[in-house]
Amino acid sequence: MDEKRRQFLTLGAGVAAGALLTRAAGAAGPIPNSAAGALRLVTYSAGGVAPRVGVVKASGRVVDLGAAAKARGMALAFDPASMVSLIRAGDFALAQARQLMQEGPETGPLVSEVRLLAPIPEPSRNVYAVGWNYLEHFKEGEAMRLKSADLPEHPVFFTKAVGTVNGPYDPIPYDAAVSTSIDWECELAVIIGKGGKNIAEADAMKHVFGFCVINDTTARDVQQKKHGGQWFKGKSLDGHGPLGPWIVPASDIDHTRVHLITRVNGVVKQDASTEQMYFKVPRIIAELSAGLTLEPGDIIATGTPPGVGGARKPPEFLKPGDVMETEIVEIGLLRNVIGG
Amino acid sequence: MDEKRRQFLTLGAGVAAGALLTRAAGAAGPIPNSAAGALRLVTYSAGGVAPRVGVVKASGRVVDLGAAAKARGMALAFDPASMVSLIRAGDFALAQARQLMQEGPETGPLVSEVRLLAPIPEPSRNVYAVGWNYLEHFKEGEAMRLKSADLPEHPVFFTKAVGTVNGPYDPIPYDAAVSTSIDWECELAVIIGKGGKNIAEADAMKHVFGFCVINDTTARDVQQKKHGGQWFKGKSLDGHGPLGPWIVPASDIDHTRVHLITRVNGVVKQDASTEQMYFKVPRIIAELSAGLTLEPGDIIATGTPPGVGGARKPPEFLKPGDVMETEIVEIGLLRNVIGG
Repeated sequence: MDEKRRQFLTLGAGVAAGALLTRAAGAAGPIPNSAAGALRLVTYSAGGVAPRVGVVKASGRVVDLGAAAKARGMALAFDPASMVSLIRAGDFALAQARQLMQEGPETGPLVSEVRLLAPIPEPSRNVYAVGWNYLEHFKEGEAMRLKSADLPEHPVFFTKAVGTVNGPYDPIPYDAAVSTSIDWECELAVIIGKGGKNIAEADAMKHVFGFCVINDTTARDVQQKKHGGQWFKGKSLDGHGPLGPWIVPASDIDHTRVHLITRVNGVVKQDASTEQMYFKVPRIIAELSAGLTLEPGDIIATGTPPGVGGARKPPEFLKPGDVMETEIVEIGLLRNVIGG
Repeated sequence: MDEKRRQFLTLGAGVAAGALLTRAAGAAGPIPNSAAGALRLVTYSAGGVAPRVGVVKASGRVVDLGAAAKARGMALAFDPASMVSLIRAGDFALAQARQLMQEGPETGPLVSEVRLLAPIPEPSRNVYAVGWNYLEHFKEGEAMRLKSADLPEHPVFFTKAVGTVNGPYDPIPYDAAVSTSIDWECELAVIIGKGGKNIAEADAMKHVFGFCVINDTTARDVQQKKHGGQWFKGKSLDGHGPLGPWIVPASDIDHTRVHLITRVNGVVKQDASTEQMYFKVPRIIAELSAGLTLEPGDIIATGTPPGVGGARKPPEFLKPGDVMETEIVEIGLLRNVIGG
């Protein structure tokens, strides 16, 4: 796996660096992030050491939060080996991370030189997910004959298994014996900060820690044709949920109008804005948390816009060797090769 | 909560003890377990100490595995604070627990004197669950107009949120603002031992650590009328999955013909045998693990037999104060009051 990952990383010029450059592939350099100055929280490993939490400076260099705090004599409010610990520690921890991004050393590795993991590599419960949440995708659904849906009164919720969570540049397992209809679904992922139950829509944004990109990769045949109409299994194959590349705090972007793009082998397949979301993030949180306690670090995939492969004529699915790029321009880009 | 729990425990004579006595309520005494000598692995707390793992002797007394091992100079192969640690440690850990059940002291508290938690109080991923797995329940489904189902080719899989996991004698939260159609579903729960992916049906039982009882408590209105036909949310209200009272190792019972019973306020509502299961445990594991890695300590609820409230004419649902008993005769009994 590590060898394959290395091969993948050398497939093109500066793949990991390219993930930073949302428009162009190329050498590492300043991050053209439209939310200038946004905090980018990563979980990464480098040099065979256990995963830890870092921040990416504007220069593209990673600051190891534990090491940087130690060097400054700063007592961190969280365990620098755990993103969820940082999230649980709340605003003060976030302020510490922000200070270390700004004041931390420029001597760390470039983000292209480390291995980025999913920001929360092993969530403690399944990923919550929303279905049918962009209007045009509803119409696709009719074309796909999944079901004819009137405009819904409530969001559709399902979950993705914990094992779906995958790194931003890691390969997506492919096993033709399980599915030959692997499809892409670019989505905005909400990371819950303060937990709660029965959260009012008006209060919901106070419970959002930040956002990242997720691809709700789907075995469309398993989702649709097996298992009696319940989506869980078709949404839950190992590694079928790349997440990252980092968490951007909610305060640092306007999540209501970010730009979502999926490319397969460089061809744009999905191109939309979260403005088109039918149920907005506060409503999703209110409905999901009715009678169900959300916890810090919980992940919610908020639904995908039009352009999935299963709705195309003829349908298109991912094949081994395909490169799937999943981008939210204001956040970052995932780049995953199929098979590995 | 603790006060309410105490009140609940004094509702009848020896409620917790009654949970041991599968046929009669009464004082504590020998456990009439038809699988004589079966190992019963519990997670419990007593005297304000953190939860730990124990075994229940034939006398009904609990052996604290950590303390008993220490007293004997036995080096445990697992962390006695964690059932999943014991499960991960495999056959040798199980042999140690069995030895301590047989040779451990008769001086511990009665099981009625401790607080039993779910054997795995905080699983690290959602509970896997199977729908429509008893033939008569399919017919009920038609009556409930959920969908007309031909005999299925594959099991229906969905998940229950981690927060559904509840103690064997703890109250079930009730909030009429969220649901007024709380229904019972007695099920055999499989506890995975050795993890794996793409497990062959013929090998599946090697991956089963043991069994316990689960009630896949369901907000039937939320399951059916909201959320576009996906069951997750209606299956996932906090505390809506009491589990226990203990894990019995797979070797200690014949899980293919155990007797499932649900009673509400003493009235039998479900009464069936796992012989009626449509997809048997090995098939469930094979299908679930296709492309999806199962881990030690994973929990699979295997579907419920006929007799659920929503299928009755007129429909019957649980109300605050109702006592729901969920029993598998060869394993044990859960007793949960609605509201709390």
